Amino acid sequence: MSRIFRELIGSQWEQGKFVCVGLDPDIEKMPSVARTSSARDTIIAFNRAVVDATHDLVCAYKPNSAFFEAYGTEGMDALHETIAYIRSVAPEVPVILDAKRGDIGNTNNGYAIAAFDWLGADALTVHPYLGADAVEPFLARADKGIFVLCRTSNGGSAEFQNLDVGGMPLYKKVAHNVAEGWNKHGNCGVVVGATYPEELKEVRAIVGEMPILIPGVGAQGGDTEAAVAAGKNASGRGIIINAARAVLYASKENDFADASRIKTQEFSGVIAQALV
Amino acid sequence: MSRIFRELIGSQWEQGKFVCVGLDPDIEKMPSVARTSSARDTIIAFNRAVVDATHDLVCAYKPNSAFFEAYGTEGMDALHETIAYIRSVAPEVPVILDAKRGDIGNTNNGYAIAAFDWLGADALTVHPYLGADAVEPFLARADKGIFVLCRTSNGGSAEFQNLDVGGMPLYKKVAHNVAEGWNKHGNCGVVVGATYPEELKEVRAIVGEMPILIPGVGAQGGDTEAAVAAGKNASGRGIIINAARAVLYASKENDFADASRIKTQEFSGVIAQALV
Repeated sequence: MSRIFRELIGSQWEQGKFVCVGLDPDIEKMPSVARTSSARDTIIAFNRAVVDATHDLVCAYKPNSAFFEAYGTEGMDALHETIAYIRSVAPEVPVILDAKRGDIGNTNNGYAIAAFDWLGADALTVHPYLGADAVEPFLARADKGIFVLCRTSNGGSAEFQNLDVGGMPLYKKVAHNVAEGWNKHGNCGVVVGATYPEELKEVRAIVGEMPILIPGVGAQGGDTEAAVAAGKNASGRGIIINAARAVLYASKENDFADASRIKTQEFSGVIAQALV
Repeated sequence: MSRIFRELIGSQWEQGKFVCVGLDPDIEKMPSVARTSSARDTIIAFNRAVVDATHDLVCAYKPNSAFFEAYGTEGMDALHETIAYIRSVAPEVPVILDAKRGDIGNTNNGYAIAAFDWLGADALTVHPYLGADAVEPFLARADKGIFVLCRTSNGGSAEFQNLDVGGMPLYKKVAHNVAEGWNKHGNCGVVVGATYPEELKEVRAIVGEMPILIPGVGAQGGDTEAAVAAGKNASGRGIIINAARAVLYASKENDFADASRIKTQEFSGVIAQALV
């Protein structure tokens, strides 16, 4: 029984699930009730509580490696245990490791082993800057999802991404190359921030049915309805709308897990409305 | 006593040291004598032997995170211990963590903490694609070295890096932005592969005295003399020539550490000749 990312996410979309909860642990932001003396145990327990409260609502989880790495090996161990927990309680929910990796081919082998074999992630975010030959060790994993950064959600993303390259901005060139050359195994996706709905619409026109990972709603200020309208594919699917802080830290009290569920339901409701 | 990367590397250059040994542990390539039952212990012991044999010759060490991450938390612990060992036996040698990180600003805080505070690296390689605002948590660390990917050593690096953006290729635009806007704290450098000496020369003309990290000699086939001639700054310095596999796996026998020293001396000799 092999797990295939595109099948997993497709099945979630069939059930009307489009919210991805970003697992970005920051112990300072967690309620005091969730904290123990060990960073590792605190992060695992917090993530388990959020997963327990939301796994029937989400299309995917997206742990961001940076937030775990900040706690050293304890954090990395917590990332490993978090993904293992999701697999055990909600095997139908794919895990997208947001690590934004990108090195030369020989070196990317190491990152592929870490993300897919050691951690057991179903998908990974990667940088486009080094080109297709460098990304090949990721692309070769046909069962995994490879999400290439296209137009990122930050305020200064235009610095290079909007430079004109032969009649189109660089991010559209990235979208073209991914859709037309990199996607031989049908396992590619792109990342476009909800904070740029116009650009999201343009990218959707380029990539067809391909999955688009859309961060930037919630704390980053992107409009969920606009992101859905701009990002959905011809089948009214293809979108993975990520919210992290707005869900994880919806309450600073004992009810934080319940609050994360309510917030996830709110996002789901807004998305369902926007898809009607 | 604060450690400042630019001072450390400048002092190494003063002594005629320009070779950087890339620490890319691959247990399969290590001599059987170096292997124990634990990946962690094997990597630490191998790296210690190489560091013991070479630290008086090198300008810096460059562990590549991917090769450690491939061994999970054992590998990350080995990375931590390797950097701590270099600091204890050769505190004058800066450590450049080659992790090619790059996320939005809020998230890059986590990567900066992991690289600089947890691991204790003196410098870090980063992706340019998200722009200056995203990289700010790295740039704000004035005591650290921030090496921005510019023209990478892989065969397919032209796919995006050579696209024309207003009369120059993208990699030159990256070099300009780093030299002219990102380097407020004087802590920036760029990465240009030895496999592209012409491009290296062009980048040197743009970035002035700035350090350039030059991977790609040895196993990747870049010519060391050409890289030195093209990469040196007006003072005949400014270059960090990285060799990894060619040094680490110079011998598959018991003499692997001695062989790594001989190979490092060879590279040093070629560089010294090229600088005359």
